[in-house]
Parts: sequence; structure tokens; C-alpha cells
Amino acid sequence: MNGPVAPAADPGVEPGVDPSFDPRTGEQHGSVPHTAPEQVAEILRRALGAAPRIAGTSPATREAWLAAVADALRSHEDELVQLAGEETGLGADRLRGELAKCAASTVFYGAVAAEGSYLGAGTEGIGGDSTLSRWNIPVGPVAVFGASNFPFGFGVIGHDVASALGAGCPVVVKAHPAHPRLSVRLAELVADALDRAGAPVGSYALVVGFDAGLQLVDAAEITAVAFTGSQGGGMALVERAAARGVPVFAEMGTVNPVFVTTDAAADSAGIAAGFVGSFTLGAGQFCTKPGLLFAPAGAGIFDAVRAQLGQVPRAPLLTAGIARGYRAGLAGLARAAEATGTGAEATGAEATGAEAADTFLDPADGYAADPQAFLVRVEQLHPGSRLLEECFGPVALICEYADAAGALDALVRLQPSLVASVFTGGPGDPESAGVVARLLGQVGRVALNAWPTGVATSWSMQHGGPWPATSRSDATSVGAGALDRFVRPVAVQNADPAHLPAALHPDNPWRIPRRIDGRLTLPTA
Amino acid sequence: MNGPVAPAADPGVEPGVDPSFDPRTGEQHGSVPHTAPEQVAEILRRALGAAPRIAGTSPATREAWLAAVADALRSHEDELVQLAGEETGLGADRLRGELAKCAASTVFYGAVAAEGSYLGAGTEGIGGDSTLSRWNIPVGPVAVFGASNFPFGFGVIGHDVASALGAGCPVVVKAHPAHPRLSVRLAELVADALDRAGAPVGSYALVVGFDAGLQLVDAAEITAVAFTGSQGGGMALVERAAARGVPVFAEMGTVNPVFVTTDAAADSAGIAAGFVGSFTLGAGQFCTKPGLLFAPAGAGIFDAVRAQLGQVPRAPLLTAGIARGYRAGLAGLARAAEATGTGAEATGAEATGAEAADTFLDPADGYAADPQAFLVRVEQLHPGSRLLEECFGPVALICEYADAAGALDALVRLQPSLVASVFTGGPGDPESAGVVARLLGQVGRVALNAWPTGVATSWSMQHGGPWPATSRSDATSVGAGALDRFVRPVAVQNADPAHLPAALHPDNPWRIPRRIDGRLTLPTA
Repeated sequence: MNGPVAPAADPGVEPGVDPSFDPRTGEQHGSVPHTAPEQVAEILRRALGAAPRIAGTSPATREAWLAAVADALRSHEDELVQLAGEETGLGADRLRGELAKCAASTVFYGAVAAEGSYLGAGTEGIGGDSTLSRWNIPVGPVAVFGASNFPFGFGVIGHDVASALGAGCPVVVKAHPAHPRLSVRLAELVADALDRAGAPVGSYALVVGFDAGLQLVDAAEITAVAFTGSQGGGMALVERAAARGVPVFAEMGTVNPVFVTTDAAADSAGIAAGFVGSFTLGAGQFCTKPGLLFAPAGAGIFDAVRAQLGQVPRAPLLTAGIARGYRAGLAGLARAAEATGTGAEATGAEATGAEAADTFLDPADGYAADPQAFLVRVEQLHPGSRLLEECFGPVALICEYADAAGALDALVRLQPSLVASVFTGGPGDPESAGVVARLLGQVGRVALNAWPTGVATSWSMQHGGPWPATSRSDATSVGAGALDRFVRPVAVQNADPAHLPAALHPDNPWRIPRRIDGRLTLPTA
Repeated sequence: MNGPVAPAADPGVEPGVDPSFDPRTGEQHGSVPHTAPEQVAEILRRALGAAPRIAGTSPATREAWLAAVADALRSHEDELVQLAGEETGLGADRLRGELAKCAASTVFYGAVAAEGSYLGAGTEGIGGDSTLSRWNIPVGPVAVFGASNFPFGFGVIGHDVASALGAGCPVVVKAHPAHPRLSVRLAELVADALDRAGAPVGSYALVVGFDAGLQLVDAAEITAVAFTGSQGGGMALVERAAARGVPVFAEMGTVNPVFVTTDAAADSAGIAAGFVGSFTLGAGQFCTKPGLLFAPAGAGIFDAVRAQLGQVPRAPLLTAGIARGYRAGLAGLARAAEATGTGAEATGAEATGAEAADTFLDPADGYAADPQAFLVRVEQLHPGSRLLEECFGPVALICEYADAAGALDALVRLQPSLVASVFTGGPGDPESAGVVARLLGQVGRVALNAWPTGVATSWSMQHGGPWPATSRSDATSVGAGALDRFVRPVAVQNADPAHLPAALHPDNPWRIPRRIDGRLTLPTA
């Protein structure tokens, strides 16, 4: 789920609009005007006005709003998949699947809100007649910067929007320039569905354009920012918002490792096929893409991967900028993989990449990318190596190790990442437990005998890893915990029971778990 | 709980040591050497080595360690209170009370760990044979920067240390230069108690000196920082640690407001007496000090406060630097309070303050501070006004309002703060609910008919407010939620049940709440 927040300028881009390109042909089909500063200001005013009204609703009310949004998405599936295909080239099957998952997750975040644990409600006596009550309140208007690579999952709709609305916050979304026409249409559907479901004016809005995005980050009305994209874009937002103490939950790109144990390598053909399928999925444009596979030497996995790459159909990348970046990245990786040194490779690789980028794009070809794999040695993998910079697209590295313990030592010295996969010979594999335990110090999720690209929207999902995989390692942008990003705790001492929120009324009208005098209690059945 | 992280150099300070001054007399009694860089490096290596060993213990084990620490504190009460008095001048009654609260809260954080909700443990099926399990792991070694004003509550021991150990993290504390001898003695007792209780070598250590503190913030071994002190010190740490993505939980100084409704002002004498008691408590050196009181005009509260100030005994401030800062702050507030403009006052006030500071300290007088109160008008209170900068010491502002709604409008435009108090005429007071609701948008805690300086260590305490009161408004440094700062979630997909942590063993050996297939379950009785 990566991609630059501000794309490199593409040839022929008009000022003041986001042009819509078809990555399959490179042709432009119309454009969408940027939102003017005064329009952004009005959107922010409305969001601020909506904030206390949304905060005053019950979680069940917002659950109904989110169900209405999901219904609107499902009932416009054909139109949305068509439009998304024209702007992303991702293919109808993938897009139908993503839209269905998005609708289901939108419903899920409503259910998480209604379950009520996210409210952290509790009350207790603290001596004498004094009481203390604590619960979580929505932070206020949230700005969402969506990703290029998940037009339905992370952006105008998807995990950030639904979890913020579920937590009781108005949302202002910045359209990703990779799919401006889809963004506008999705936003119309969402705004209309929310409106018909009774959500207040200002609950949701879209802005278009890089400057409009900056205006959001700097706006006093915005109290939290969710971002999915590149490290450069994410860290720029983190730094900009830090000046006024606004949290940015940035999910950024890192290289996700896969570790194949000796026992697991017995099925080298299966591992190779699964790896190729995972790192070329969606043309390799996943933040969960497995970018670096460690396998025992002698199992022939690199050769098997190379052989299978020829069968992967060429697929277009999302934008001309991503296609240029991929070409440059490939050139850099090739130079770094060939080099024997420990750092000197980077400069040469970048120069080669820059030259390659200038001559890359043939409009008749769309933004097609050839999948690629490189063989590297353990000694080449050190923090700061060019090999460990994420290359967005269908490329991965394979490290064939002679010594499993040494390879694992090298792995845990690398940059932390969002997710890792471990392939084992099953529960009896003696390496399994040790590898998982060490990887947990580096990542947010370890998938055993499963590829990292499958992400469930569920109660126990963790989609966020140690910095710089995400800006806050204690946050997740997928799963029930996603709501926690958009609330903060408040306490009231000696509250008049009549003035406590419904979450803490003595008769528990919302039927939520609560902590009463230190003891966690569940609603009676 | 404020005070500079690096104090202004005091006259006569030797290089390489933290001198110990008695604030009651201004005399120096010895000094403590700074920790050398190679010693700090060794401490960090030991902490890193201890991290997985502590992470592998049960919460009940750490509960026992914390109980041992509390016992050690209680059994050395006389010695510790004597030493703390010599370095802080805070008085034996206050110090005995603070030490007793610290011991009790140390036990409390152990109980919170053992209850186990902080582990956020859950497991679920996610389709087919796949499972997903999630729980919180300790982040690793934590650096704690203590405060000048709570020698037992926030620093070498206290909330940050006990909650980090409870969460399973090794702790390295930076001694506050206001009480170096006490810090060394406390650290000896804590380290010895932990050692005898069976905690691994490296679980806890103290470093002394400003440079040693910087070394901690920059160290790869340190994964989180807790700080209690001034805005300047806190923000410097936040920025420094941001470069490598390390979270800093900084609890900083802001001006905490008090709102007195028309009904409540009937007891103007009681309000005035309570206010003076609260803002001069501990010589006004509390982060929860009520710094700005809004009361109806005509109730005579300002006059009553001024009359009572004469009865408050002079008390020494903690350090010469704080005493100079207080004198400068008083001068600035006096100028700003007299001015009619909206900003022009600041420059003049600062100049006066600087001049005053040069001629302030008479060693024979210790660092004594005269309590003071200023009357200000609603129109003078605007964001950025000199009046709203925290002045550490026994001073407060009073704003007598003619129009309650207008005063409340002004109040919520001010800088957010840690806590607010509201005094009402009781449950029937028509203003009460509205005032509380509006203040909750600005603060972490609202105390009704109670002064903000009383902070309970309990399940529902929230001791953290919107930035810049704290660097993270979703965190608390007091109460059960304090542990949450020092853990992060991890998920394992398709884990072999035998490899799951005890928190997720099928038979629930730790007897903790868990979320199984989406449903929160409590341990059976």
C-alpha cells in the first residue's frame, strides 16, 4: 500500500487538475480539478461542526451508517470496478475482490464500534465520596491520505475511513492522484449514503490536489492524520504535523522478509510458486509484498523462481511515476546485487537508474513492468544497503544461506518491517519456534506457512510494525484496533451520574464491556 | 511535575558532577559524578540483554518484583525522607506522603500487570484452517527522565519506572540534577530489591548527567522514553528521538484552568481558601497546579485570595534555576496583567524578568518564593499571550467574568492542559454539564468540586491531555493505562498452539481476560 503522496510530475500534466491516465495504454481520459483553498476551508468548517454531533451518537447508530456505505458500494460494483480498472489497470477480478472485502470491512468496523470495548469505559470509587470515570472520546476531524495501490481498501473508502467514522470522527479524504475520477465517484456514493442514513452534514468529504492535502495537514480543525504510502511521503507528513502535536498514523513501505527453514525447503517448487505469486500479486504493488526470501542453499529455489517468472504475464504499474521508479529501482538492485562491497554500490546504482528512467516509457506499452528476482548473499545485507530499500513493483531478492543461524542473525539486523512469513516443515520443525520468536522483535505480524500478502480484517489483525514500517508501532490500520487511533481517553472526577455518557450509565444501555471498581465486567446476556 | 531537563548552570557548579544543594539554605552538600559514556554503554548493553529475559516472565513474577521494591522503599522511609528534604526542601509531611503513595502505586502497577488486560490477548479463526493470534509484547529498554518536583513520584522510582517494569521492560533512569544524592540512594535500594527478588541483571539502572541523558535518547537499545518536565525539555526530547522513530511520552507543563459557576461562587471564601491551598501546594511546583481561575465578578474571590496569600508561609523552590525562573515569570506576568494590549506586553515583561533574575538570589535566603496572584480580564486571554505560559511556582491568575458563556468561550480557545477543575453548586447547577462537556475537549481530566492537584493512582485515572500538555494525548503517565505506553501488539498467523505465549494457552494459565473468536471472555472464577 505504497506510493508517493505527491507523484513526480508526469509529462503533459496541466496545472490545477489531477489528470486521469489509463495505465494499460498510457492515455489520458479527462481530469478532475483541484479543490480550491476556500473550498477546503469550508469543508474543514463543516467537519468541525459535525464532530460533536457525531461524537454524541451511539456506536450502533454509526454501525448503521457504515452498513449503508457498504450497501452503496456493493450496489455500484460494476460501475466502480470498471472505473477503477480504467485508472489502475489492476484487473476486474482483483478489483471485485477488493471491493467486496472493503464492503465487508466497512461493516466490520461498525460491529467493532458497537461491541464497545474501544470505548475503554470504566468507573470506580477513589476514597470517600470521590469517584473517577474514564472513557474514550473521538479526537475530532481526521484527514485520510489514501494509497495508489488499493483504490477501495485504503483511501476514499476503506480501513482508515471506516474505522475513523466508527470511532465517531468526521473524515476528510485527500484523493490519490492515481485514480481521481474513481475518487470523485466513490466520494459521491459515500457522502450520499451517509446523508441518507442520517449522518450530519460535514461527516465526510473529499479534497483533490497536493496543495489541498497540505492544507489539511496544517489545519487547526484536523486532529489526526492517517496515511498509507511511501516512506518519503509518510515521514514528510509526520514531521509537518509534529509542529502542532497532531498524530500521523503512517503505514509506509519496507522490505518484508520470508524465512524458509531447512525442513520447509523440501517443497522447493511449492515455495517458489507461492513466492512468485505473492511478490507479483497486483504487479508487486502491495505494502505486504515479500521482498526478500531466505532459503537454504542447494534447494534450488532461486532457479525455480527465475524459471517461473517467465510465465507471469506483464502487468501495468499504477502510474508513470511508479513505472519510472520501478525501472530505476531494478537497475539499482541489479548493480547492488552484483557488487561485492558494503555500501559503495549505491551511488553507481542510482546513476544507472536515473539514466534508465529517462528512456523508459513507451506510451504504446502502457506502464508495463517485467517481474524480476535477484540472488544476493548474506554478507551483502546490512542496514543501509541499497538492497533493502523498498522497490515498488514485481521484484524480490532471494538469499540462499548455508548457515541458518547466521542468516537469521543477518535478518534481524535489517530494517524492521510490517510483516514476515516463515515456512516450516510443520509443528515438529525444530527451527520454527526460534525463528518466529526472533522475527517478532522486528515486525508487526508473522505468518506461518502463509504468504504475507493476505491480510484479514479481524479482531486480532496487526497491520503495523516497528518504525519505519509504520510511524507508530503500537497502532494498526487494519482490524479492530484501527479504531483506537482515533480516540483519546478522558476522565471525570466526581461526575454527576446523570451527566456521564451512555457508556457509563448504571444500566449499561449500550451493553458494552466496562471496568467497574477495577473489575472488567461483560454485559449480561 | 515540571522542571527543566537541563537546568541553567548555577554559579559554582563543577564540571563532571551534579552538585547537591539544600534549597532551604542555598548551601552545597557534596556532589555526584556523572556517568561516563562507556559506563552508559555498558548499562545499555545489560538492559538489552535483560529485555528478552524480563519479557519472558509472567506478570505475576513482575508483580512480586514490584512488591519487593515497595517494601524496600517503606523500610527506608526515614532515611529517604531526610535525604529528600535536604535536596528539595519540600518538608517531611509532604515527602512521607509522597513516598507512601509511591510505594502503593508501585504495588498497583504490579496488580495491573497481573490482571492481564494490558496484554490485549486474543485469538480467532480467519477462514479454513487459518488462525490469527494477537498480544502485546514489551517494547524493550525504556529510558525515564524524572522530574524535579516529585522525587519519589516521577523519576528514579514512581509511575514511569513501575509501569515500565510491570509491562516487562528494563528501565534506565536519568537522575534529575535537583536531587542527585537521593537519586543514587534510591537507585541502590531499587536495584538491590529487584536483584534479591530475582529480576535479571540489567533490569534497572541509573545514569547521572546531562550528556548521559542524551546518550540514552540516542541509543539504539532504547525503544521508548518517558519524560516529566518542562515544555522546552520535553519537546527537545520528542524531536531528538523522532529521528529514529522512538516514542517519547512527555508530560509537560501547561496552565490548568478552574471554572467557578455562579452557584458555586456563593461559597467564595471556601473557593478562595481551596484555591490558595492548591496553587501553593509544594510551593506551586505541580504539573497539576491550577494556574488560572475563572470566577463570577462580584463574588470577591480575587480579594479573598489576596488576603489569604499573606498567611501562606514562604517556601523554598527546588533549585536556584527554578527560583530565578519564578522571579522572571512573576515580573512577566505582572507586566502582562497590567497591559491592555493583545501581545505587545510580552517583550517588555521578558526584559523586566531577565533584569530581576540577575539580582534575585540571596544565598542566606535559600530559594524562597513569595506566593502571588494576578487579576486578569477575559480580553487579555488569547492563545500566545504571556499570561498563558506556565510559571512554575506559587502563582496563579484570576479572571473575574461578567458573562459566563463568554468566559467559557475564551477558556476553550486557550492552550489545552492536563486537567481542569469545575466548581458547581451541586448536581442541580444548570451550568455544570455544559462546562464539563466543553472542557473535556481541552483536557485529559475534569475534576468536579475538587482541586486538580490530587491525582489518584487507579484504573480510571487519565494523567495526560491534548498536546502540548503531553506529547501523546492517548497516553497516561498515572493509572492502569500507564503500562500501555511500553507495549506494542504483534500477531502470529497459524501459530502452533504449543508456541503461543502463556497469555494465549488454551487453559489460560495466567487467568486473564482474552478475546476468543471476537468475543471478550473473562477468566472463570
